[in-house]
Amino acid sequence: MSGGVWFPTLGLVAWLCFLGPVQGGKVLVVPVDGSHWLSMKIVVKELVRRGHDALVLVPESSMLIHGSENYRTEVFPVPYTQDDLDQIFNKMKDGVFVKNTGIRELYESVYHFAHFLSLQVDGCDRLLSNKSLMTRLKDEGFDLVLTDPFLPCGSMLSHAFSIPAVYFLHGLPCELHLEAIQCPSPLSYVPVFFSENTDVMTFPQRVKNMLMSLVMSNMCKLIYRDFDTLVRKHSGGITTYQELMSHGAIWLLRSDFAFDWPRPIMSNIVFIGGINCAKTAPLPADLEAFVDGSGDDGFIIFTLGSMVSKMPEDKAKEFFDAFKQLPQRVLWRFDGVPPTDVPKNIKLLKWLPQNDLLGHPKAKVIITHGGSHSIYEAICNAVPMLVFPLFGDQLDNVHRMLSRGVAEKLTAHDVTTEKVLTAVNKLVNDKRYKENMVKLSAAHLDRPVEPLESAVFWTEFVIRHKGAPHLRVAAHDLNWIQYHSLDVIGFLLIIVLSVVFVTVKCCLSCIRKCCRSSKRKSD
Amino acid sequence: MSGGVWFPTLGLVAWLCFLGPVQGGKVLVVPVDGSHWLSMKIVVKELVRRGHDALVLVPESSMLIHGSENYRTEVFPVPYTQDDLDQIFNKMKDGVFVKNTGIRELYESVYHFAHFLSLQVDGCDRLLSNKSLMTRLKDEGFDLVLTDPFLPCGSMLSHAFSIPAVYFLHGLPCELHLEAIQCPSPLSYVPVFFSENTDVMTFPQRVKNMLMSLVMSNMCKLIYRDFDTLVRKHSGGITTYQELMSHGAIWLLRSDFAFDWPRPIMSNIVFIGGINCAKTAPLPADLEAFVDGSGDDGFIIFTLGSMVSKMPEDKAKEFFDAFKQLPQRVLWRFDGVPPTDVPKNIKLLKWLPQNDLLGHPKAKVIITHGGSHSIYEAICNAVPMLVFPLFGDQLDNVHRMLSRGVAEKLTAHDVTTEKVLTAVNKLVNDKRYKENMVKLSAAHLDRPVEPLESAVFWTEFVIRHKGAPHLRVAAHDLNWIQYHSLDVIGFLLIIVLSVVFVTVKCCLSCIRKCCRSSKRKSD
Repeated sequence: MSGGVWFPTLGLVAWLCFLGPVQGGKVLVVPVDGSHWLSMKIVVKELVRRGHDALVLVPESSMLIHGSENYRTEVFPVPYTQDDLDQIFNKMKDGVFVKNTGIRELYESVYHFAHFLSLQVDGCDRLLSNKSLMTRLKDEGFDLVLTDPFLPCGSMLSHAFSIPAVYFLHGLPCELHLEAIQCPSPLSYVPVFFSENTDVMTFPQRVKNMLMSLVMSNMCKLIYRDFDTLVRKHSGGITTYQELMSHGAIWLLRSDFAFDWPRPIMSNIVFIGGINCAKTAPLPADLEAFVDGSGDDGFIIFTLGSMVSKMPEDKAKEFFDAFKQLPQRVLWRFDGVPPTDVPKNIKLLKWLPQNDLLGHPKAKVIITHGGSHSIYEAICNAVPMLVFPLFGDQLDNVHRMLSRGVAEKLTAHDVTTEKVLTAVNKLVNDKRYKENMVKLSAAHLDRPVEPLESAVFWTEFVIRHKGAPHLRVAAHDLNWIQYHSLDVIGFLLIIVLSVVFVTVKCCLSCIRKCCRSSKRKSD
Repeated sequence: MSGGVWFPTLGLVAWLCFLGPVQGGKVLVVPVDGSHWLSMKIVVKELVRRGHDALVLVPESSMLIHGSENYRTEVFPVPYTQDDLDQIFNKMKDGVFVKNTGIRELYESVYHFAHFLSLQVDGCDRLLSNKSLMTRLKDEGFDLVLTDPFLPCGSMLSHAFSIPAVYFLHGLPCELHLEAIQCPSPLSYVPVFFSENTDVMTFPQRVKNMLMSLVMSNMCKLIYRDFDTLVRKHSGGITTYQELMSHGAIWLLRSDFAFDWPRPIMSNIVFIGGINCAKTAPLPADLEAFVDGSGDDGFIIFTLGSMVSKMPEDKAKEFFDAFKQLPQRVLWRFDGVPPTDVPKNIKLLKWLPQNDLLGHPKAKVIITHGGSHSIYEAICNAVPMLVFPLFGDQLDNVHRMLSRGVAEKLTAHDVTTEKVLTAVNKLVNDKRYKENMVKLSAAHLDRPVEPLESAVFWTEFVIRHKGAPHLRVAAHDLNWIQYHSLDVIGFLLIIVLSVVFVTVKCCLSCIRKCCRSSKRKSD
């Protein structure tokens, strides 16, 4: 706050007193497993640090959601095992190194994704049918649900307990979140998921965008069908998941316009892209020594995210052969059986402190799958990217980075030593990549409020005000015809046509009369 | 910033170093006279306080823009006198106490407004044709233009000097600012200027909204015609004022969703509603004594803004007669000849420290014209309003407040003692007005960044990054047909119709062949 002018601080304090204390809010956290949870956990920890009580709901079969001293957890039984989950993820992982056509790739993605979702929906059904647990949770008197709407459980609990929901997400398939908040997305410059378009499209690309929009909206009906059924079963009176989500108070979007292309937004969207860039510790001594010793050539980080740490031997060999020809050192998140002759400039690790490494001044390039977390860590630290998009939103993510001139893209199924070498050398030696990335990073980091601060502020806002109804658009109460004013246009058209019709009729009748009388006269 | 997590502060510092120093930016300020300037001045002063150099362009005939020790000024000659300006304003002021029909009122408003604008356009033309001054200004090497786009001078200077523009405004007639940044405004729930609609409309109201939209867009062609001519004359290659404005880097909107109804927004809009609520000094002793002595009944503030401080004697009498029956004390901004028997509970003043008075705990009601500044001061301080909308956006402003249940509305031309008494008593005694206002105020004041801080931050952002191109939508490069994908829809329709046509033709031809062959066989 500026020191030169006195703001109505006393007034503010008075209102906050009227609203009751902020600290001591009770937050029910309904997370989604995997990398989704890693960034949400940052917010949960910060809420607890500020004096709130957070209870995290954990399905008994889960990959990354575990207990912690920072928050309470409630483990609930689900009708699938860890093996079931692993099986699906392994199929998805195996698929990434196999060449598919575009349509096949889309189909495979949707198929595995739908299978994963159906398991999760079953888990959610079990939770909502668990009467004793539901009663216990309701009796806790939570102030809000903080959830990732990638799965419907959190939204349904918010409805069941009549408490507001704060959504935390990067995005949803088919941009259902934007549909849910009535956010306009003109197809002429807002590229559709999976379309590989940017915000600047040629005519054929715009045709593709519209066709993809039709295809995706139908595919998504399939994806969200189970969600809708579950909603109808448990959230009386609400018929679709989209409708249920439309009641969300605040949408914390892990995005911003350094990453995304500018587009219309809504008043209840809060951008918190880069929230995962927080650093917690210095580099371990051995890593510090390895990267410090890389000289002027610097080092490269290679990781394909939390889901893929193994790759087929022949693919790994292509990378080994490429890396050993590089002057840079390479830190590789590698979980397979290493070859006996690992070159000296390569260090294999089962886990990498990725963001800390990216923050090191000698980091030259990151080779990544293009998950939103990795991309933001690269942007925060201004490190150019070589991206191997694998599945989900990664293909879309990489296109955003390619259009900014800060990345190169390769595909995992046809990777060769030559391609890797060429791409890395281009990223290191062509200074434009770094320059563009520095500019992008500067725009991203130059913000009035840090993303974590923003996320916590708006979560507390919802606690303080018991929602954010002043940010909910009236469009929610309109049907499709009303929203697009088609009834009004139809009504006005009928009036105009009626007037034209009557006028023409009158004129014709007058002309006829005139003709007749002049005829009679001439007769 | 949270203390628990280490953000990439070093990285940020590095990028800011890369970007060059923030302090020492050179800002060319092109203000609009009247109340518009009063809130912009707050930002200019704060920029100077932070080490920037601001030069304010002042037309030699001006009401409220004067020199200051806080900023430099450059007075430029204009082809109109102070008398010309006063004459227009007096006509507008006189008109507010005369009853007009809705259409007549609209016509009168547009007429006087267009006359005022044509004078200003002449002034702007004179400035832009003043070669020596233009050269001198260009040579100053400004980093940006901070301007109110209510008049076109600032935008045109930004174009002439090839520097970015930051726009500071409440809104523009016909919402030209939203058109300029390609912000969607669905007519089904976004009420049109002057329509007296809220965001929730019945079918007839939606019809009215659409008709008003057609009327306004034509009226506005008239209003902005001179702007467009001026732009074509001085801003080579650009044909309309809307197109010129579309290049604005950041739009500082003196609004938010405590005041406005939620609606789609764009990425380069920054809401700074309530920026004028800053307090600078305690109340003068005599005022403090007067309001403190008002007891539990409290006091009422009565002002019709910076433009109307005089009113016809008969109208004033209605107010005097009403006020003397009230238990509250009344502070009245009054510039006429006071009657001899001013009741003891009324204090007449030529100027009121409005915001400071509103901040006093005994303030019960403000009687105001409903200018955006007054409304925000009432919201900031949670004081219910009795509004007499006079001209411009005031009619729209008051509807926003009526829909929130925090205000009552009367019209100046048919005001009576009885009406004033009833309205004030309702506002004081029906606790719902105060309760609604306290909630609204709480939502408005509860923000992560103060409006002044936000305005200055984004102005400095534009200085640091030489614009904000990452926030400019690609829609600007599309024409109307492309934006609405009409060409794509047409193309797809042609394909679908062609396929249907060929299929039907083939089927018909097959059927015909089958019929012929069966006929032959039967023959």
